[in-house]
Amino acid sequence: MKCRKCKDKAVINMRHHKLALCKDHYLAWVLEQTERFICKYHMFTVNEKVLIAVSGGKDSLALWDVLLSLGYQVDGIYINLGIDAGIGYSERSLSMIRKFMETHGEAVLKVVDVPVTYGASITTAASRTHRGKGRPCSVCGLTKRHIMNRIAEEGGYDVLVTGHNLDDEAAVLLGNTLTWQTGYLARQAPVLPASGAGLVRKAKPFCRFYERETAAYALLAGIDYVYDECPHAVGAKSIYYKELLNTLEEERPGAKLQFYLNFLRARDEGAFRVFEEQVELNKCSQCGQPTSLVGLCTFCRTWQQVNSQSGNTQ
Amino acid sequence: MKCRKCKDKAVINMRHHKLALCKDHYLAWVLEQTERFICKYHMFTVNEKVLIAVSGGKDSLALWDVLLSLGYQVDGIYINLGIDAGIGYSERSLSMIRKFMETHGEAVLKVVDVPVTYGASITTAASRTHRGKGRPCSVCGLTKRHIMNRIAEEGGYDVLVTGHNLDDEAAVLLGNTLTWQTGYLARQAPVLPASGAGLVRKAKPFCRFYERETAAYALLAGIDYVYDECPHAVGAKSIYYKELLNTLEEERPGAKLQFYLNFLRARDEGAFRVFEEQVELNKCSQCGQPTSLVGLCTFCRTWQQVNSQSGNTQ
Repeated sequence: MKCRKCKDKAVINMRHHKLALCKDHYLAWVLEQTERFICKYHMFTVNEKVLIAVSGGKDSLALWDVLLSLGYQVDGIYINLGIDAGIGYSERSLSMIRKFMETHGEAVLKVVDVPVTYGASITTAASRTHRGKGRPCSVCGLTKRHIMNRIAEEGGYDVLVTGHNLDDEAAVLLGNTLTWQTGYLARQAPVLPASGAGLVRKAKPFCRFYERETAAYALLAGIDYVYDECPHAVGAKSIYYKELLNTLEEERPGAKLQFYLNFLRARDEGAFRVFEEQVELNKCSQCGQPTSLVGLCTFCRTWQQVNSQSGNTQ
Repeated sequence: MKCRKCKDKAVINMRHHKLALCKDHYLAWVLEQTERFICKYHMFTVNEKVLIAVSGGKDSLALWDVLLSLGYQVDGIYINLGIDAGIGYSERSLSMIRKFMETHGEAVLKVVDVPVTYGASITTAASRTHRGKGRPCSVCGLTKRHIMNRIAEEGGYDVLVTGHNLDDEAAVLLGNTLTWQTGYLARQAPVLPASGAGLVRKAKPFCRFYERETAAYALLAGIDYVYDECPHAVGAKSIYYKELLNTLEEERPGAKLQFYLNFLRARDEGAFRVFEEQVELNKCSQCGQPTSLVGLCTFCRTWQQVNSQSGNTQ
């Protein structure tokens, strides 16, 4: 198969786009497309300060690389969750990011160490709360959202970006659709505006790239990354939904992209507008972050519970 | 496993309802539930004339049996599509319905023979039109909808009911959702009101029963039926969607029902109201049936094309 642009040997064939490209044209195409999505969904401008959440995985590192190449002002934040799982997961993730930074001299990284800052690893924290029964993903998500918003606010960033790709977005969408979680459907979008109550704008510039495409970008751009999924995610529903969607995609190439794009169109046309809640947000009496609760926010309540049960384990 | 009501041996266990029942209590439960759905969705009353489309399959025969048992005024319509497929499919279906009628003395059946009335079997008709390329389902659906509405109107019936079960409805819903066909989503419901332009009310009293439950009803009530799917449906998308949903159901019992019911709730709450089209309907200049087109309706256009190409085959 030949590159559509230069007739050199193609390294990737995107059946859903009927597009095969060589290495150089593929790397350029990802940059162009990302720029197009950033503009199309009004995510941010070159004059704004961007904070990217990096995990050490392919998506966030590839996105950081792309945003720097496109000339955006983008700093990274790494949240060390203290997950070991016998493979030193969190430590390996951080060292992968450090390696990335060696070849990206301009990159600035902020690190928040959860065990040091909050007193327990996510694994331990989850085991001490009812939220964490079975799987720490709920406590982990809550904690990451809190930290990301706090760091973005404190650093004066205009927008927080994450590396979610199409497979991630389509899986979340399928989960929300199969249960018709209308409130979540109303809020799922490539960009979520800031709210005056202290919630920073959020954007997902890679939301239209298949996972295979972000992996190909990382590989071809020479970016090394952590291959493992988070050890706690094994058996998670999102992985199950991804498999369902992969079955569908095999049957009909492009099905996943169409599912997501047609949802965005339906949403734009007002499908879930009636479910857009205008929740009155308060400030948490302890951390000052926005919360729908009165007094302490869910993050502070959860971590209060975690630390009230602290023993010798971390 | 024991019957929840009488402690006799249960013949069916419905995990999604956490309900096991013996034969007698299961048959009674199906009747009660059907009555409940008819009332809940305002499908029809005992004073109205009901026309049921029967195919000879388990769903329509079970539904006819249930509606007669519940005391509704319900006549049947069988549309002989002239499908042979080497197994005399249509003829076998009709003989199964005749057998049903032997044990249901009060049942009245109207038969419309498509080859006799319109000049070609569905198989032949499809082969002569661009709509039928590959699979006759499109021409078949169009033809059945036309005939059912015509017979319902001519016979002064208040409502046309079909035996669609939950698996059917969920599969259609999944197909429409994966492509976000908002217009179709706006119109998918247990009951569709009549329109002044001559479209009769439509209702699906079995829409909340799993296929397994309607099959169990037919079996336990001693109703014999055609087991084969329509030979033309093999490989149809709807079957593929059913398989996807079965995978999901295996993982989470009740998932299919929740998918459908939560959709109905979201729809009721206005999710797709903005897509409800108020199409201006005209009367077809030939058959008088409602149509969004000017002059001939799609049914008349299609069959004109079929008959203009008629040779010796039927």
